[in-house]
Amino acid sequence: MTTPFSDPSLLTRALTHRSHSAPHYERLEFLGDSLLNLFAAEMLFELRPHADEGDLSRLRSRLVRDQTLAEIATELQLGDHVRLGAGEIKSGGFLRASILADVVEAVIAAIYLDAGFDAARQRVRVLLADRMASLPEADALKDAKTQLQEWLQGRGQALPTYAVLNETGADHAKQFAVQCEVAGQTPTTATASSRRQAEQGAAKAMLKQLSGRRPS
Amino acid sequence: MTTPFSDPSLLTRALTHRSHSAPHYERLEFLGDSLLNLFAAEMLFELRPHADEGDLSRLRSRLVRDQTLAEIATELQLGDHVRLGAGEIKSGGFLRASILADVVEAVIAAIYLDAGFDAARQRVRVLLADRMASLPEADALKDAKTQLQEWLQGRGQALPTYAVLNETGADHAKQFAVQCEVAGQTPTTATASSRRQAEQGAAKAMLKQLSGRRPS
Repeated sequence: MTTPFSDPSLLTRALTHRSHSAPHYERLEFLGDSLLNLFAAEMLFELRPHADEGDLSRLRSRLVRDQTLAEIATELQLGDHVRLGAGEIKSGGFLRASILADVVEAVIAAIYLDAGFDAARQRVRVLLADRMASLPEADALKDAKTQLQEWLQGRGQALPTYAVLNETGADHAKQFAVQCEVAGQTPTTATASSRRQAEQGAAKAMLKQLSGRRPS
Repeated sequence: MTTPFSDPSLLTRALTHRSHSAPHYERLEFLGDSLLNLFAAEMLFELRPHADEGDLSRLRSRLVRDQTLAEIATELQLGDHVRLGAGEIKSGGFLRASILADVVEAVIAAIYLDAGFDAARQRVRVLLADRMASLPEADALKDAKTQLQEWLQGRGQALPTYAVLNETGADHAKQFAVQCEVAGQTPTTATASSRRQAEQGAAKAMLKQLSGRRPS
């Protein structure tokens, strides 16, 4: 970030990982996470006037996920300035997306504390603008079970049912096979290490099967 | 709230439940939740200079939980002004803490949009000031398993182990009995409808047992 800081120690702290020295960035990251969530919420509130609360929430999760923040850190070349301890560097921490994402949040808090709300807000809005424009439709961010339920409800059809066909494996390595049934359709199945994931997999397979047909 | 609104329709919307009419408060609630989280984060950042990120996060959850927000709504007599549909009134919605909490968040967003950041921030800081002062110590907000782990670690002792003794009941009404073991202690057990809750119960019983003795 090119903004000069009145108090450069704030920026230094925002760039310091706990493996390097104290004070490190974690408290700033807590504050910055709240700022980022607010700025993203406000942009979505303005730019998606027809999105309901659930859609806004899903869109925001996508907008400020770690992967996006790590990309921003790379754009801003923050990685070159992050201060990591020797152990963390050896274990590859330098490249970890989660650390880069944390640092972006901490730097946002540092700007807020140093230059105020408007300065931090303006900076974040510029960083998020292109990403806002390329966000998918809110529906595409819904999980498969929700999409399937809404697809069926929208056509006045009965809701799907899910059943565990079997559980295999020892306690620490369980596998769940789940079947999804929809009236008039061949049931679909999926297997995963949790019942929840297996249900999502079976719902996804059912959506795929349904989308291969003309909507009834 | 006694602040006059430049745009009174914002306040009306903040007080309108979806059961009454559109536009209702839900989109404002999404924005207000972000504002409230930021204001609470900032106060804790200032007033708890030694709390780490985890403590700050737990303290904030406690500070802005629904129960607190519903109390604030009652203080501000917002309940008298909430606009609910007839069906919701019949089903007792008028008194539901969750609706009152939602309305407080929506009103914070309405103030922000109408009067700006500083006005909303100042208003929330006044509302939260007394509650900040009476927050418990951060440690008291940790779950029982975490408290037990830290108690043992602080004394250089081995970590506790948890084992499911048995699962009973049909799929929709499972009960898990879990045992917590700590070296040199009588094992404790607890039963609950999830493994997670049963572990917390067993950890709580172990903490109680340990606190009945002199720290070793």
